[in-house]
Amino acid sequence: MKLITYKNGNKFRLGVIATDGSVFDFSEVGLEFYDMSDFVINRSENDLKKLKELSLKSGGLSYEKLEKCAAIITPRQDIICLGLNYMAHAAESYKYKNKEFDGKREEAVYFSKRVNEAVGDGGRIDPHSNLTSKLDYEVELGVIIGKDAKNVSQKDAKEYIFGYTIINDISARDIQNRHKQWYFGKSLDTSTPMGPYIVTADELDSSNLDIKSFVNGELRQSSNTSLMIFDESFVIAELSAGMSLKAGTIISMGTPSGVGMGFEPPKFLKAGDEVVCEIEGIGTLRNYIC
Amino acid sequence: MKLITYKNGNKFRLGVIATDGSVFDFSEVGLEFYDMSDFVINRSENDLKKLKELSLKSGGLSYEKLEKCAAIITPRQDIICLGLNYMAHAAESYKYKNKEFDGKREEAVYFSKRVNEAVGDGGRIDPHSNLTSKLDYEVELGVIIGKDAKNVSQKDAKEYIFGYTIINDISARDIQNRHKQWYFGKSLDTSTPMGPYIVTADELDSSNLDIKSFVNGELRQSSNTSLMIFDESFVIAELSAGMSLKAGTIISMGTPSGVGMGFEPPKFLKAGDEVVCEIEGIGTLRNYIC
Repeated sequence: MKLITYKNGNKFRLGVIATDGSVFDFSEVGLEFYDMSDFVINRSENDLKKLKELSLKSGGLSYEKLEKCAAIITPRQDIICLGLNYMAHAAESYKYKNKEFDGKREEAVYFSKRVNEAVGDGGRIDPHSNLTSKLDYEVELGVIIGKDAKNVSQKDAKEYIFGYTIINDISARDIQNRHKQWYFGKSLDTSTPMGPYIVTADELDSSNLDIKSFVNGELRQSSNTSLMIFDESFVIAELSAGMSLKAGTIISMGTPSGVGMGFEPPKFLKAGDEVVCEIEGIGTLRNYIC
Repeated sequence: MKLITYKNGNKFRLGVIATDGSVFDFSEVGLEFYDMSDFVINRSENDLKKLKELSLKSGGLSYEKLEKCAAIITPRQDIICLGLNYMAHAAESYKYKNKEFDGKREEAVYFSKRVNEAVGDGGRIDPHSNLTSKLDYEVELGVIIGKDAKNVSQKDAKEYIFGYTIINDISARDIQNRHKQWYFGKSLDTSTPMGPYIVTADELDSSNLDIKSFVNGELRQSSNTSLMIFDESFVIAELSAGMSLKAGTIISMGTPSGVGMGFEPPKFLKAGDEVVCEIEGIGTLRNYIC
């Protein structure tokens, strides 16, 4: 199923995208949740069954006309992110910093990103031009944890995944590098477009998906999730061995090569740019720097 | 005022510590909040006034006999932490990694710490001995933001502070260093003792407080908050220029020298140890590795 957060007047609503492409509000089957995090955390199997049936109907709201919001507007905790999780991106990152790269990536790099309010498909990204001149894009596979995970094995990890979405891990490279740890440069307001919706895990094999980004129509990143160094099962197992991952946790799986800092000269984002992120089987996440 | 979270049977309760040292439950003046974060975020001036009056009474619950919980058990977002914010600690950290330290600290280092459940005074810290052999302590001043902060000047920053507490930023040095970014090594379950309570900002001048830690009674860290390189006003101004700090945000201000990795040979924590953190004007936070 595809699950979407949208705005109706002043209210945030949850909907399911039907097989005909239209959208039905959760309330059609009597479901009311505070937000998508609440749904991910507290939904029952029966809720999912009702939505599945609803998704087989036709003639709902027009998807195109909806005011779309981030898949999860307000994550309950910071988003966990992976750094340098595609080899070619690790190489371009080292090169940008004039550091030598030995071609080895033996340990996953984890950091986090504060998300006060994630940005939806069609939404704006603040250029923060008073703070940064090196704003960059990063298309990433977003993994949403569906039940509390503690000491989960790699073999069982998939059972803990509720679904997938696209995350654009907007990064201010100058701030990120100046402060050594990446947190602040990754956490500026509007730095997390996430959407356009969630695809539930039962409908997506995440192991072999084309992943791309475009800036003003120019293809910048083009890779495949099969090239991730550490996949989500590895990550869930490694982290949950010591750090419980609560339902609602979002993990952003790192970006392939082709980010702005990877070009010579670099191609950073500027006001007026359109950034599009695409992952096969999920969809398209389009945002504007303004 | 001193505000405490405690446990009564299966219920988490909020209380104010009265001038006679006893504790009165918020419900004595008709106040009910979901938890301390809810109180910090949603309290009114009138609520504070009622609690102030309540704190002047005597003969409440015995503080000693209370089952104390973390000042804020479940932060709404990850805790923002400063790294290397005392010069002598920066020096010991570089030395531990066999790196040369030039004695300059020109930019604050920010990272975050996931806190699923903070640990209260008297609570246990899991040694995670299957994952780390280098568990370390770090006494830090915890700053709790009381109203949404965006583009706040250094001059006005204090107005945004609700209060202060003590945080022990437990760190698994091997995990922290192996994964390059510090997030995972700082976020193991039970890695955030926080308490014993909150002292409201009106009652504490944070600029000149002795800050200490002890392991099994041995003084390990002994410094003063006046030696922080970046104070909380600087940090609130710098971060809020790009990254809104919502009410309820917790900032941990970095630790002075004397952590386990600073000794030769290092003195890491082991099962059976008692760690005590003290900050003048706040109190004592005692925890056990077990």
